Amino acid sequence: MIVEVLNVGTELLLGEVVNTHAGWLAKQIFPLGLRLSRQTTVPDGPAIRDGVWEAFDRADILIVTGGLGPTTDDITREVVAELLGRKLEASQEIRAAIESRLSARGYAFLDRMLRQTMVPQGATVLKNNHGTAPGLYFPSVSHPSSASPHIFLLPGPPRELQPMFRDSVLPVLREIARGLDSRECRIYRIVGLGESAVEQMVGLQLTSNPDIEVGYCARPNEVDFRLIARSEILDAVEPSLINALGKHLVSSSGEGIEANVVASLTARHLSLSTAESCTGGLLASRITDTPGSSRIFHRGFVTYSNEAKTDLLGVDPALLKQFGAVSEPVARAMAEGAREKAASTFALSVTGIAGPEGGSPEKPVGLVFMALAREGKETLCREARFATDRLTFKQLATQAALDMLRLELL
Amino acid sequence: MIVEVLNVGTELLLGEVVNTHAGWLAKQIFPLGLRLSRQTTVPDGPAIRDGVWEAFDRADILIVTGGLGPTTDDITREVVAELLGRKLEASQEIRAAIESRLSARGYAFLDRMLRQTMVPQGATVLKNNHGTAPGLYFPSVSHPSSASPHIFLLPGPPRELQPMFRDSVLPVLREIARGLDSRECRIYRIVGLGESAVEQMVGLQLTSNPDIEVGYCARPNEVDFRLIARSEILDAVEPSLINALGKHLVSSSGEGIEANVVASLTARHLSLSTAESCTGGLLASRITDTPGSSRIFHRGFVTYSNEAKTDLLGVDPALLKQFGAVSEPVARAMAEGAREKAASTFALSVTGIAGPEGGSPEKPVGLVFMALAREGKETLCREARFATDRLTFKQLATQAALDMLRLELL
Repeated sequence: MIVEVLNVGTELLLGEVVNTHAGWLAKQIFPLGLRLSRQTTVPDGPAIRDGVWEAFDRADILIVTGGLGPTTDDITREVVAELLGRKLEASQEIRAAIESRLSARGYAFLDRMLRQTMVPQGATVLKNNHGTAPGLYFPSVSHPSSASPHIFLLPGPPRELQPMFRDSVLPVLREIARGLDSRECRIYRIVGLGESAVEQMVGLQLTSNPDIEVGYCARPNEVDFRLIARSEILDAVEPSLINALGKHLVSSSGEGIEANVVASLTARHLSLSTAESCTGGLLASRITDTPGSSRIFHRGFVTYSNEAKTDLLGVDPALLKQFGAVSEPVARAMAEGAREKAASTFALSVTGIAGPEGGSPEKPVGLVFMALAREGKETLCREARFATDRLTFKQLATQAALDMLRLELL
Repeated sequence: MIVEVLNVGTELLLGEVVNTHAGWLAKQIFPLGLRLSRQTTVPDGPAIRDGVWEAFDRADILIVTGGLGPTTDDITREVVAELLGRKLEASQEIRAAIESRLSARGYAFLDRMLRQTMVPQGATVLKNNHGTAPGLYFPSVSHPSSASPHIFLLPGPPRELQPMFRDSVLPVLREIARGLDSRECRIYRIVGLGESAVEQMVGLQLTSNPDIEVGYCARPNEVDFRLIARSEILDAVEPSLINALGKHLVSSSGEGIEANVVASLTARHLSLSTAESCTGGLLASRITDTPGSSRIFHRGFVTYSNEAKTDLLGVDPALLKQFGAVSEPVARAMAEGAREKAASTFALSVTGIAGPEGGSPEKPVGLVFMALAREGKETLCREARFATDRLTFKQLATQAALDMLRLELL
């Protein structure tokens, strides 16, 4: 079965917004035995017609994203209705849903939103619980010599598209794809090993197996090792794989390090606090991204200035003066201070130079110290150098700090 | 001039890797007066042929990324040579460059790399200083009734593609695009208005102007309103646009609300601290995403538990008991406590229910109170309801809190 994605949006072709839809959709349809054959981006406006028209001849399933909004450049709905020869009719039900959504937020229904209430004949409405534009599904229609593809029109914003896809599109696709030879894709998230080291440790036994498709995806300080095969084959190889990866394996579900740490702490009724300088709250924010984190995380300190480190964490001003804020002794003192003030089992601290300013020959941009204070045990400290841009630095430093705790909890 | 990008790579269509090439290339060519008309992704292997062939008829400039590697499914070079009727010849110069690169890393030249040394007749080699596969440029060839597009073949890895593009492709494109009417793209970031309201307020006077291209990109609680036109036209319409948008306009450079607030505070030598419950550090992290934020932000408190609110911010336990942690009095007390403890000009607080757990009929998931404590002035408070997923909730709540401060600083 040939599946294509057509992304509509001038902002994608201007480079203003990165297209994350295609990849997200690819991952969703994979477990059904479906793979993306092609992805195309066209600008808002008449080019939508060419994109849809060309995919007609090739695709069994066509997923179109974007162009359903209320503004004049959003014409996906109209173009597809025209190509399929379907009349548009206003839906009172959609109008009522939009009005109730808007009034809950204190906005009025505007005339220009009327277009969003139009439904082409024969199309199924896909409810939008997170925005105004409903999605539309046109089932495949058979002609004497061919069949039109199944066509799904979905809204552009990811927070609208994703729940709609899960709730309304996946069940339909599951029916369409019924009987396909489905495979499972398992993603083993690995930290502290490069791609080639992963291959050396686990790849050889697997690449020689013709029933398993192996892939790698490397990101800053982590590798996703991907296996595609029938579930029973994956079940058979998984134990030796887990064994080979040892402490480098974060999860076998693609789940991140934050969720791993929160789950370990929760299961053992332990608690964590944070003391951050250069990461400015991101460490606490990553921890609290995990639902239920309030059970293990009660307070965090963002101590950007030296005074804050002394006032809030009790860091000795003499230490700051002698070693500087970006130093191992200060990282240790921050973690120990946070643990004491928060009365938590563990405390993580991070102090470093995120840049672009603030570096020196002795302490260049990217230098960072992380410490883990532990109840009744010596504080651990790690030094690293992440010479990159400010936001990647914050990501890498928080990742490394979380990994110290993950290893401690193994 | 029609410019297309063809991305080759199975990993892009599996969703393992997000395609950042198209957007990056779009931004590079825009200042030359060139825009991407279409972007297509095809998997490694024979589908490359279809992708290139179809673009032939449409494009004046075709940029192909990926498929230049040493493995058997990397056939971009061969496909384009065949389509253009060019013979391939081995280049001793490329071989020497690859060998010297490999030997510096202790690797041997493998037979399968021979393909990377093949150059189609009439193609210009684009040197790769960051990998083995060189790029290739085929200048447009005129035929009696038409012309083939200018074709650039570039390697897939961004750290190889980007320097090659800057060093070898941009100068050629600059010549090709010489004399084009180049335009400016201005992005007006707007908060507190929906897409349709923006169009109603500012769109009409602009959409009727044939010299201006208008676009919208909506995100949680913000809209980017995009104008593309000659600079003098933008200069002429900008004052009335700024006037119409009023306090909803965050910036006319696409700059976000964090950067706006940090810049305002810095210019006025004011300072800010934060007290966060449900946003768990994200507010502080967003502020510290902006370089130079250490001048205005010295400390932040992440007070997830009631005890933390009392210990760190001095929130009266009686308030917590009477009104609950998610309440206007507690939001006020948190902001005032943070401002006092941090001795800052302003303090922002957020307390709410991020979910998915912790909601009740009186205080449902998504309910949030934000307060802004001000020096010598009454504390402001705002209540909102962001009924969405946990991460979007954190984004919206921090956005709304930052906007209270932005408005205060207008």
